[in-house]
Amino acid sequence: MNPRRISKPIQIGDVIVGSGNPIAVQSMAKTDTRDVVSTIAQIRELEACGCEIIRVAVPDAEAAQALLAIKRAINIPLIADIHFDYRLALTAISADVDGLRLNPGNISEPEKIKVLAKAAKEKNIPIRIGVNAGSLPKDSNPEFTVAQQMVETALKQIHLLESFDFDLIKISLKAFDVPTTISAYQDIARKTPYPLHIGITEAGTPRTGIIRSTVGISTLLYLGIGDTIRVSLTAHPREEVIAAYEILKSLNLRSRDPILVSCPSCGRAEVDIIKLAKQTEEQLIKINKPIRVAVMGCVVNGPGEAKDADIGIACGKGKAVLFKKGKKIALIEEKDYLAALMREIKRF
Amino acid sequence: MNPRRISKPIQIGDVIVGSGNPIAVQSMAKTDTRDVVSTIAQIRELEACGCEIIRVAVPDAEAAQALLAIKRAINIPLIADIHFDYRLALTAISADVDGLRLNPGNISEPEKIKVLAKAAKEKNIPIRIGVNAGSLPKDSNPEFTVAQQMVETALKQIHLLESFDFDLIKISLKAFDVPTTISAYQDIARKTPYPLHIGITEAGTPRTGIIRSTVGISTLLYLGIGDTIRVSLTAHPREEVIAAYEILKSLNLRSRDPILVSCPSCGRAEVDIIKLAKQTEEQLIKINKPIRVAVMGCVVNGPGEAKDADIGIACGKGKAVLFKKGKKIALIEEKDYLAALMREIKRF
Repeated sequence: MNPRRISKPIQIGDVIVGSGNPIAVQSMAKTDTRDVVSTIAQIRELEACGCEIIRVAVPDAEAAQALLAIKRAINIPLIADIHFDYRLALTAISADVDGLRLNPGNISEPEKIKVLAKAAKEKNIPIRIGVNAGSLPKDSNPEFTVAQQMVETALKQIHLLESFDFDLIKISLKAFDVPTTISAYQDIARKTPYPLHIGITEAGTPRTGIIRSTVGISTLLYLGIGDTIRVSLTAHPREEVIAAYEILKSLNLRSRDPILVSCPSCGRAEVDIIKLAKQTEEQLIKINKPIRVAVMGCVVNGPGEAKDADIGIACGKGKAVLFKKGKKIALIEEKDYLAALMREIKRF
Repeated sequence: MNPRRISKPIQIGDVIVGSGNPIAVQSMAKTDTRDVVSTIAQIRELEACGCEIIRVAVPDAEAAQALLAIKRAINIPLIADIHFDYRLALTAISADVDGLRLNPGNISEPEKIKVLAKAAKEKNIPIRIGVNAGSLPKDSNPEFTVAQQMVETALKQIHLLESFDFDLIKISLKAFDVPTTISAYQDIARKTPYPLHIGITEAGTPRTGIIRSTVGISTLLYLGIGDTIRVSLTAHPREEVIAAYEILKSLNLRSRDPILVSCPSCGRAEVDIIKLAKQTEEQLIKINKPIRVAVMGCVVNGPGEAKDADIGIACGKGKAVLFKKGKKIALIEEKDYLAALMREIKRF
């Protein structure tokens, strides 16, 4: 795995993004921002499942005016997502949001950026330059690839902000096409010191979108690129947060939950391993410690993997061996598999 | 994306693996191999959803004897998965299976490998050296990392097979830990010319296992490594095949199905985009062409992405614009969104 790219840190509320800090997990509320009650409820639900930064859409003045009430009622940093109308960003700044996201595809006029840079700087509010392949500026160079156009668009806005002495900058360059997205991030990573918010845009429904997002995000992370991640799914944002942590866990970049190792089952298994793994997974949701649990169905890799886990079970015919830190601790009957496993996990 | 590593091709039934051929999707039957009827039914179901190579567990003589009947009743190459008892591999060879998988962690004695190499060579049956971190040989060097032990184990078996003039070899080095797996494959890719079967072992239930498998497999593919893939999930093998194709599709390595681009929805959307995307996805399952469909909820990226798609819909308030190859073709009412979209998709 490549060492993590060193980036210039920024502070979003109490979360530091960049420069070796933990890769922050963020999501976006899908409620109507003007519906303050529903928006706060959804954000609190996301906080409970580990979301560390939340963004809300600010499509009009009423939504911008709702930001203050939302900000006061939540515990994680709030980012206002602004398109087209720079005055909405000014309202958001006066509501003390923790960050802004501007799309240079629809707000890029120097005089507007100048006003925003000044107002944001006074309050130390960082700005994400959020480039999206679906909304590139009309004057993008058509001879460039989409990746190059995205990078070009970001660089222009970066230079503009820098010319107004503003450097609390974060950058994202999202496309639906994964190789395009990866190549754009690799390029911008070389060209600027700013932290990067990574993700794949419009990735789709969970069935396909989780895989598409994971391919893009995990490859970038493997290459050492990315300071904060958002998994975009056409689904409840809770699914985005859960998926984000699974990606980070798979690369050993963050761990806060139990890890379940379970074999895929095959013609060798003499127990319904799919059912046992599912039941174990459901029980593990309530366990808040980074414990490694193995549920294995046969004698090939079973004992090996089960021994490597903190708590493991290797099932044979009607009986299973329970392992704790590599040591056999019990031989158990089939009817007791789940109960015995969970008892040891809770004790651990 | 790195160019694909050039590997020495092998032929498994009518599927060529390696050397720039399409990355083959494989899975493993989870039925009891001795139950021929269920095993054949499951393999046929997998064929129907695109599985290109199937493996079955061969834990005993009865399972080995079932191979002939299974082989005759299916249309994709059959691989026999052998552990501990090399005689089961001989029975599999006499049943004309298309490939063998041997685990060097439990079959590695030179005299046995010699017999198998001779018998397999006579029938041109390739052998996968399937190393698994959970079942490394007892004499592995404990000073090595797990990745190094896996590579060492594979190299020993490779040299043994080569010494018996056998080179129809494929290799896999699977661990649960993703960075370990990636590092092992990178190392073996440099040290041998043989094609690589890639995957993450015991990745878990779909919720977490799809992400873990995707992280490992997609990173390797991005690095140019991998000739055939198996996604291991504690679930019905159909899910493994679907996930495998989604990974390949995300990296533009294979495409056989429609691609659905859909926005994650946010406070800007004036339509229930999650519902519309889900309904579209369900309808698309029946469409067998590589068409790109975009379902977008607002005016920011909506028109841009919808225009990039073969058929796209960009929804506003109560009305949406339908796009075909970048051209607006209709303005439609909310009640007609799904019907109008599907009509154009079918016509395309």
